[in-house]
Amino acid sequence: MSQPIEYADASPEVRAIYDDIMATRQTDWINNFWKVLAHHPATLRRMWDNVKQVMGPGALDPLTKELIYIAVSVTNNCQYCIASHSAAARNKGMSDEQFGELMAIIGLANDTNRLVNGYNAPIDERFKSPSK
Amino acid sequence: MSQPIEYADASPEVRAIYDDIMATRQTDWINNFWKVLAHHPATLRRMWDNVKQVMGPGALDPLTKELIYIAVSVTNNCQYCIASHSAAARNKGMSDEQFGELMAIIGLANDTNRLVNGYNAPIDERFKSPSK
Amino acid sequence: MSQPIEYADASPEVRAIYDDIMATRQTDWINNFWKVLAHHPATLRRMWDNVKQVMGPGALDPLTKELIYIAVSVTNNCQYCIASHSAAARNKGMSDEQFGELMAIIGLANDTNRLVNGYNAPIDERFKSPSK
Amino acid sequence: MSQPIEYADASPEVRAIYDDIMATRQTDWINNFWKVLAHHPATLRRMWDNVKQVMGPGALDPLTKELIYIAVSVTNNCQYCIASHSAAARNKGMSDEQFGELMAIIGLANDTNRLVNGYNAPIDERFKSPSK
Amino acid sequence: MSQPIEYADASPEVRAIYDDIMATRQTDWINNFWKVLAHHPATLRRMWDNVKQVMGPGALDPLTKELIYIAVSVTNNCQYCIASHSAAARNKGMSDEQFGELMAIIGLANDTNRLVNGYNAPIDERFKSPSK
Amino acid sequence: MSQPIEYADASPEVRAIYDDIMATRQTDWINNFWKVLAHHPATLRRMWDNVKQVMGPGALDPLTKELIYIAVSVTNNCQYCIASHSAAARNKGMSDEQFGELMAIIGLANDTNRLVNGYNAPIDERFKSPSK
Repeated sequence: MSQPIEYADASPEVRAIYDDIMATRQTDWINNFWKVLAHHPATLRRMWDNVKQVMGPGALDPLTKELIYIAVSVTNNCQYCIASHSAAARNKGMSDEQFGELMAIIGLANDTNRLVNGYNAPIDERFKSPSK
Repeated sequence: MSQPIEYADASPEVRAIYDDIMATRQTDWINNFWKVLAHHPATLRRMWDNVKQVMGPGALDPLTKELIYIAVSVTNNCQYCIASHSAAARNKGMSDEQFGELMAIIGLANDTNRLVNGYNAPIDERFKSPSK
Repeated sequence: MSQPIEYADASPEVRAIYDDIMATRQTDWINNFWKVLAHHPATLRRMWDNVKQVMGPGALDPLTKELIYIAVSVTNNCQYCIASHSAAARNKGMSDEQFGELMAIIGLANDTNRLVNGYNAPIDERFKSPSK
Repeated sequence: MSQPIEYADASPEVRAIYDDIMATRQTDWINNFWKVLAHHPATLRRMWDNVKQVMGPGALDPLTKELIYIAVSVTNNCQYCIASHSAAARNKGMSDEQFGELMAIIGLANDTNRLVNGYNAPIDERFKSPSK
Repeated sequence: MSQPIEYADASPEVRAIYDDIMATRQTDWINNFWKVLAHHPATLRRMWDNVKQVMGPGALDPLTKELIYIAVSVTNNCQYCIASHSAAARNKGMSDEQFGELMAIIGLANDTNRLVNGYNAPIDERFKSPSK
Repeated sequence: MSQPIEYADASPEVRAIYDDIMATRQTDWINNFWKVLAHHPATLRRMWDNVKQVMGPGALDPLTKELIYIAVSVTNNCQYCIASHSAAARNKGMSDEQFGELMAIIGLANDTNRLVNGYNAPIDERFKSPSK
């Protein structure tokens, strides 16, 4: 396990990124994901740039983006990611009922994905048009 | 690969489920997923009941449900499921831009999930409260 | 894609393993899995030794062993493996009904695995005793 | 992590399902999987219906069904599921030797699945007939 | 399936990225991965920036980087990625023997990963020091 | 969880394998992976034979072999395996910078693997020649 690097112990390069994270998120703390990435500042910088761009304003609303993130994280069993993005989703308004439905869909999709694998269903012609 | 069972060749039990699928979806065709499950009618019945309940009206809107389904299916690389649920999402209004953002989030989450694994980031105390 | 190496084109070292596979399985052909591994004879030899030992006679009956193999292969979506081990299972007596139940269990386990991930159910004390 | 909902704190709807689980399994306790699903009663009801049907009497014997469940759970690294279904398998007669062979097959299948991926072995014609 | 966007049909924004890819790689063609990402130029730009940084010169030699990429892609069964990065590894000097050993390690790691899951081996104290 | 079997409690058959592991690795201790496999001596023997052959001297240098092992283990989220093979890689000279780059590549490959899945990029003709 990598020890998180706290702000007080961080290099100026890392502090600048921490500052940007806090300013962008309008918060005064940094979660451990960023603090462990700080062991490799190039990765910290690059991943923050990615998250800022991909999770920032766009055609999908912020809550939907978090639900998609959770769907991937639950499928991969990343407990840290489930915890952090569930918290983010709660902050963005996810209700208990929505969380319950989210879990149900994730489970069901993982089920039907395997039924498709096992029966090897041929893709219907109608589905073959470019999805763009 | 299992051969899809067409309506004309299906038993009355299977036809009744096909009829319910078409009536529920207000369409006149059945996609191959159901036609291969028809080799085991108990599974066909059970899975249709699951899909009808989980993907039916609820606290999450229909398009969001499809996006979650796609997120799981892309993570698991189920080409049939990606094709069928992308088509469903298009029918429910998914734009090109939304599809692009969806792919970007799925890819990014699969990346950060592994960074968390590799660095083994400890879960922040704030994230440990029950997510319900 | 690696081209399968046919018996006629194989080195004496590879032919000796092909011969052992056919003798052990009491058959006169070699499936492509072994023919592509033949590009790296040390791997061909080692994997055949593993398969012969693990899938040979033991405390689990031969059909059960194939069902377990299929469960892993469907979960991982290895189409070649699903095809080859489904054929093996058929040869060992798997019925249509058993295949249908196998698929249903695999799908369901993939579903509940994710529900456990998402809800992060604490392991019950009763389950914590050594499973040996 | 979701807190398990104990019987004493459960709604009548949830209690009725708990009662059915205990009656069906002829036991007097409920494991945490069901107690966390109780946060979303529709999912609790639906999943119990699925498990009761899929894991109930059929063409595969009860122990074989548990072994298949374990194979999926080990492949996905679901520790809760491995613990609960290993306990169930022990109750249904799984011996130490059978557990050892089960693990060996699961490991080997995960190995050969990747060798197939990496060498991209073409599916033999003999394996292409419908597996039903 | 998304249709690749050819240079002749690409927008100036996309062409500029294609030009940078070809200049950086000192080649005169673009592979389909980039041509499908071109449907979402922001993703094309972002992913190219990531690949250029991560796969560029560093503390690991270029061939080792490709082998790591292949290890992930084989584990996930991404046939496109295996094909493209195997070609890249060949260009960087990978021998047949090295490819064979790579496959053997990937397979074995996927095996032992599951044995660890199934036996749930406790992490040795010596391994618990921060890996940085 | 399986209890590790210590040397003092091991059968002569198991001790002989422990002795070979320590002699081969020129060390005086055995890590828990082997101690849990000792519950099934045939697996302990077989897996040690596999590891000794695959991870022994060959065309890939010892550190590169460990990096490949880590890439698989991080993708599968096997914390034990990440810990043990990171320690091995450190012993074989892995620097902090190399570890950082390794994590970055693993994360990125898991990202692009899914973009390929989602966009279903067709494999370029140039990549289709046998990779041997």
